[in-house]
Amino acid sequence: MPAPLHAPDRTLVPALRAKIDRKTKPLGALGQLEELALQIGLIQQTLSPALNAPHVAVFAGDHGAAKAGVSAYPQDVTWQMVENFLAGGAAINVFARSNGLGLTVVDAGVAHDFGTGRGGDGVDFVSAKIAPGTANYLEGPAMTPAQRDEALAAGAAVIADLAARGCNVVGFGEMGIGNTASASLITHCLTGTPLAECIGRGTGLDDAGLARKQALLATALERHRLAGGGDAPLEVLAAFGGFEIVQMAGAMLAAAVRRMVVLVDGFIVGSAALAAIRLEPALRDYCVFCHCSAEPGHAAQLAALNARPLIDLGLRLGEGTGAALAWPMVKAAVAFLNDMASFESAGVSDQDTE
Amino acid sequence: MPAPLHAPDRTLVPALRAKIDRKTKPLGALGQLEELALQIGLIQQTLSPALNAPHVAVFAGDHGAAKAGVSAYPQDVTWQMVENFLAGGAAINVFARSNGLGLTVVDAGVAHDFGTGRGGDGVDFVSAKIAPGTANYLEGPAMTPAQRDEALAAGAAVIADLAARGCNVVGFGEMGIGNTASASLITHCLTGTPLAECIGRGTGLDDAGLARKQALLATALERHRLAGGGDAPLEVLAAFGGFEIVQMAGAMLAAAVRRMVVLVDGFIVGSAALAAIRLEPALRDYCVFCHCSAEPGHAAQLAALNARPLIDLGLRLGEGTGAALAWPMVKAAVAFLNDMASFESAGVSDQDTE
Repeated sequence: MPAPLHAPDRTLVPALRAKIDRKTKPLGALGQLEELALQIGLIQQTLSPALNAPHVAVFAGDHGAAKAGVSAYPQDVTWQMVENFLAGGAAINVFARSNGLGLTVVDAGVAHDFGTGRGGDGVDFVSAKIAPGTANYLEGPAMTPAQRDEALAAGAAVIADLAARGCNVVGFGEMGIGNTASASLITHCLTGTPLAECIGRGTGLDDAGLARKQALLATALERHRLAGGGDAPLEVLAAFGGFEIVQMAGAMLAAAVRRMVVLVDGFIVGSAALAAIRLEPALRDYCVFCHCSAEPGHAAQLAALNARPLIDLGLRLGEGTGAALAWPMVKAAVAFLNDMASFESAGVSDQDTE
Repeated sequence: MPAPLHAPDRTLVPALRAKIDRKTKPLGALGQLEELALQIGLIQQTLSPALNAPHVAVFAGDHGAAKAGVSAYPQDVTWQMVENFLAGGAAINVFARSNGLGLTVVDAGVAHDFGTGRGGDGVDFVSAKIAPGTANYLEGPAMTPAQRDEALAAGAAVIADLAARGCNVVGFGEMGIGNTASASLITHCLTGTPLAECIGRGTGLDDAGLARKQALLATALERHRLAGGGDAPLEVLAAFGGFEIVQMAGAMLAAAVRRMVVLVDGFIVGSAALAAIRLEPALRDYCVFCHCSAEPGHAAQLAALNARPLIDLGLRLGEGTGAALAWPMVKAAVAFLNDMASFESAGVSDQDTE
């Protein structure tokens, strides 16, 4: 675990609100962007925050349960998509380029050998493989406690590297065939929402596929319970994985300790955020929830964390695409706080002066 | 009126859908962005659209009815905010800079003399003043038919200039104390939604102010009806104004004739779009609805036009801020259509190959 995490000191709230309210606009007229500006000011403990070297980190991992039929796609798609990231052709590459974000791809535990010297051409590659895929949670825990702790530390190391390069705002993304299933199990255990309400079609299961996924996950949960497994966040992470989810949880905690802004993508990244916030509730204040996933379990996460995402475009792709698409709004929130004129500086009459 | 307007030919729909569906993502996983990519491909009649020299045009005008108490702010704020735009300090300046959009401010009819040689420093200024504010619609039509037609033509001229500079995507914004009231009247007349449901607090009226606005607008509507006024779009525009709304309507039609993408901001720009679409229904296919305004009348417009905006952040500022904030998503939609790899090109297994 990284250093102790504290929620941002709120002493600056009145000064930040006053700065926002004196901008040349009706009170509250920038809606959610005003809350976002306030949040980032508090994270950085300044009236004039700056977002530097924005980055998306995509964590990839395979799932032992994937071959049991929890996804519409074959497991090989995980490594094939990592190759697609490295070649610059995936949606997250396109959106990161379009919106000026750096991109790092992390092999958290893909069942494939990517060789050495990978990355370059605008995409960094980090080899942080805990194992070539998790164990099948239908038969036992997805990972050992030692693997889980190793994954938490590996995620923190990714953040240490980004921070060393000047990054203070990081979006999270993921790739892993079968990982909506892990996210569903984690969401159920950590929010108490009925399991069936946490399970969706993932990348595109049909009705029969959805029914099969629901039955398999109910079996996995029963196996966990029969083995004496409880709902403590660390226990749940080890039980259901994946390595990419656990690494993201460790990375988010490390980012918050460094007072970085954490951009949470959709359902799967949200399951990592949920687990990490259950471990360290102060993390919540560092998180910006970027988009509302079409996966039904995402609503349960958002309700549990009292979060309202910035965009709702019906996305269900993952990879950090929601975070990358929402990033210009985060940037805009800081820009208005820093750069807009006040009623006084612009010589504009305020409502009160009428 | 500009040249006849035709809806985009839909012959390309299957080819565009096929291109979108072969991208390395589950079918439909980019949600609303997929529909947006399809729409822009059709507007430009190509599988590889390009958005060039993106621009926001902010039309400003004063309203004779403003002094009767339909706004929380004094009328002088209109020209003061235009000066703020020219000085670069308003929200739309900040967001246009943050997202790489050009900015043009149009004096469509502000009750103020801005002098000559204005603009520069990243903001263009167009003097297209029809008159120094509309007439008070509580006493008679806001403008004469001749003024309305002059305003439609002036809006078209703004677009001709932008097109000559290579722009093929234009966002619309507005500034005019009292113009939510005009937008409410237009929305009522053109959608049939009860007037009270089309009226909101604008820039921040309290309960008493809202009641006063509702009573005034009911009186204005009654005056219009007693004078024999009907619901034809051109008649409604002249009856309730303002010059900025009519110029935007003319500009949108001219933009669509040139196959430009029209980015519609919120409630007031929406009233211009609504009137222009009632004049030329084919315009609808060129419009991208950018954000959902907190003004209650906006929902009536969106329902009437079967539109679902890209963002919903509780904004109620106008100026084109919603269009500027949504622009990166529009850009991203075109980027994924052009730049994402296909299953074939990336060597990724598709769902069907499992």
